[in-house]
Amino acid sequence: MLSLDKIYQASFILKKVLHSTELVYAPKLVPGCELYIKPENLQVTGSFKVRGAYYKMSQLTEEEKAAGVIACSAGNHAQGVALAAKANGIHATICIPAGAPISKVEATKSYGAEVVLVKGVYDDAYARAVEIQKETGKTFIHPYDDEDVIAGQGTIGLEILEDKTLAGSGNFADVDAVVVPIGGGGLISGVAFAVKSLNPNVKVYGVQAAGAPSMYNSMKEHQQLTLPSVSTFADGIAVKHPGDITYQMCEKYVDEIVTVTDDEIATAILAMIEQHKMVAEGAGAVSVAACMFNKIDVKGKKVVCVVSGGNIDVTILSRVISRGLLMEGRLLDVTIALADKPGELTHVSDIVASTGANITTVRHSRSDIDMDINSCFLTLQMETRNKAHADEVCAKLEEAGYQIVSSH
Amino acid sequence: MLSLDKIYQASFILKKVLHSTELVYAPKLVPGCELYIKPENLQVTGSFKVRGAYYKMSQLTEEEKAAGVIACSAGNHAQGVALAAKANGIHATICIPAGAPISKVEATKSYGAEVVLVKGVYDDAYARAVEIQKETGKTFIHPYDDEDVIAGQGTIGLEILEDKTLAGSGNFADVDAVVVPIGGGGLISGVAFAVKSLNPNVKVYGVQAAGAPSMYNSMKEHQQLTLPSVSTFADGIAVKHPGDITYQMCEKYVDEIVTVTDDEIATAILAMIEQHKMVAEGAGAVSVAACMFNKIDVKGKKVVCVVSGGNIDVTILSRVISRGLLMEGRLLDVTIALADKPGELTHVSDIVASTGANITTVRHSRSDIDMDINSCFLTLQMETRNKAHADEVCAKLEEAGYQIVSSH
Repeated sequence: MLSLDKIYQASFILKKVLHSTELVYAPKLVPGCELYIKPENLQVTGSFKVRGAYYKMSQLTEEEKAAGVIACSAGNHAQGVALAAKANGIHATICIPAGAPISKVEATKSYGAEVVLVKGVYDDAYARAVEIQKETGKTFIHPYDDEDVIAGQGTIGLEILEDKTLAGSGNFADVDAVVVPIGGGGLISGVAFAVKSLNPNVKVYGVQAAGAPSMYNSMKEHQQLTLPSVSTFADGIAVKHPGDITYQMCEKYVDEIVTVTDDEIATAILAMIEQHKMVAEGAGAVSVAACMFNKIDVKGKKVVCVVSGGNIDVTILSRVISRGLLMEGRLLDVTIALADKPGELTHVSDIVASTGANITTVRHSRSDIDMDINSCFLTLQMETRNKAHADEVCAKLEEAGYQIVSSH
Repeated sequence: MLSLDKIYQASFILKKVLHSTELVYAPKLVPGCELYIKPENLQVTGSFKVRGAYYKMSQLTEEEKAAGVIACSAGNHAQGVALAAKANGIHATICIPAGAPISKVEATKSYGAEVVLVKGVYDDAYARAVEIQKETGKTFIHPYDDEDVIAGQGTIGLEILEDKTLAGSGNFADVDAVVVPIGGGGLISGVAFAVKSLNPNVKVYGVQAAGAPSMYNSMKEHQQLTLPSVSTFADGIAVKHPGDITYQMCEKYVDEIVTVTDDEIATAILAMIEQHKMVAEGAGAVSVAACMFNKIDVKGKKVVCVVSGGNIDVTILSRVISRGLLMEGRLLDVTIALADKPGELTHVSDIVASTGANITTVRHSRSDIDMDINSCFLTLQMETRNKAHADEVCAKLEEAGYQIVSSH
């Protein structure tokens, strides 16, 4: 059974490998909320996963350690297990679906794990890992549905309540709420257990991606439900089915679960980059997104958002940034129909400049099939201050007689 | 005259406004070098500039404070002065060239400064600031060529030598070298003075962008030289002319100045994002770039790289990421000529897949003027592990008889 003792023990054992991730005060992210970030994106391996994996391995017998461990993951769990195994002097085999980003495969190898690339998706890699486990007798390190793993993740709960940044106010445990991302539920199970055991007054909220609401649905229906499919760029929490243990623990210790859209997640990632020069992955940013988009009542409260990881593929990061800018009305794409005669581009540029928007890209197209033979389409991308400013630009163009074909 | 006393005083006064920026251990950035980052990108306002500006203002008389301050900047100095003025209860006017990114203008306003947008480039904004200064008697806060400003920046030198992460080895000042970005030279003048005053054995290296080597050239010719123009995306250090004071101090206290290219800077930014989930701006990343690209001999040494700021425009960040990936051979763009018949795309995809590269974009073009009427161009963008892997992909395609039109 999970106990506070176990989490305190994990906390002691983990000191050997963890980076300290002190709370970051983030007063501007959500106006009117005293928000703190628990930056597990800055944790060694770039996510909290090393906590559970390392503690789990520290509890193995010498025989089990000698036999090695096996795990299946396309992401943070792979790196967490790899590093934890290396630090414990244990051989690790990790099954990874072959389509996983090369950067994640390379990172896992760099920690010394043996990587088995499995053709197909996560479920195929999982099946292969189970096979290998049976053939070899290695210990399977589950990503979330394991009490030792949960105890390891629970150390984050202790650290939040003991953080010296919060303690600056003179009261060690006066946080009102802790907001935690949920995939399989291992992180929130541990954090909720630790926090509620020490201070039942602290609210614990879970957040899932709207495209992968497995625990959200299960809690709502009060039964473990499986999603037919998941769809979100927050791959770290794209889990179809809650764990058995984690589902029970969420029912018991979590106050509420909410969901956020991919666009909301992108906006949160962008805000953390700009305001805190900190990179979060999609799964990591859902907690901040939930507060920014009022999914949880945080007005006037002291809230800690666990940002669980930062291992976002850099090619996706570029797309996330653009999406976040569009969401905030800070990037405007507008296409207008133009008579194909000299001087028109200058006129349009003048109008845009008069509003203070910055044009960044111009595309001029004559060959669109929807168009009169003597006219053309002009697509402008520009930086704007916010949605109102973007609307102003469009209004000015229409006032001047230009027909806006599309804008977003 | 600058003195260590003054820097210690600045250090004491600055405690009121600074975030602590403890050294970040970054052992993987440069193999064989014990590298630490001094993360001033995580400083309040996103750069070190607040240090000099705040200390300078703290030294003004009550009359001067009442009259207010004026500054000119398109970037970090603007935000530093704005926050420092607010914290000191002083009115600040900041002249900003009208073409500056909207995000920087908004950030400056958000700290409560009065922004004057001046048509033209930096020099025009500077001229306007000088005019306003004369008309109003406000105190001009120079971005670098001022002893109080330099003293403020010098506090970074003290913090490096006293950092508890370094002190973990039991010796407070056993760092071998400190590497510092140079624009006008205010930061390195303060840091070099502080470091050399306390421990003359520590080497101090300066780094400039290859497209803006004003201090580099001046040190080489032993006279203050002005560049006709500058060209780098590291806008924070794109300075044409070293300061009078800073030039003298560099001659006296800096061991060597080196330069890095924009591609090298992009690679360093990407490495910090991936390995440390930390966003640096171009100017901030030159120190790390210099170590990564062996501009300085750091093998076997304990080195601190000052990462001076993180205020990179997010739209530029996307381009920097792509550039960094291309530089490392992790993104390959290859265009091949193809007979325009069914099945060719499948065949090409198979070849690429057999190498383990991930195709991310496909463009198929029939309308290029350089092309036979019965053939087409296929452009593939793919993720690769490194340069050798990218070369392998190209070789496999050529072996199969495809003509590579271009690749990079």
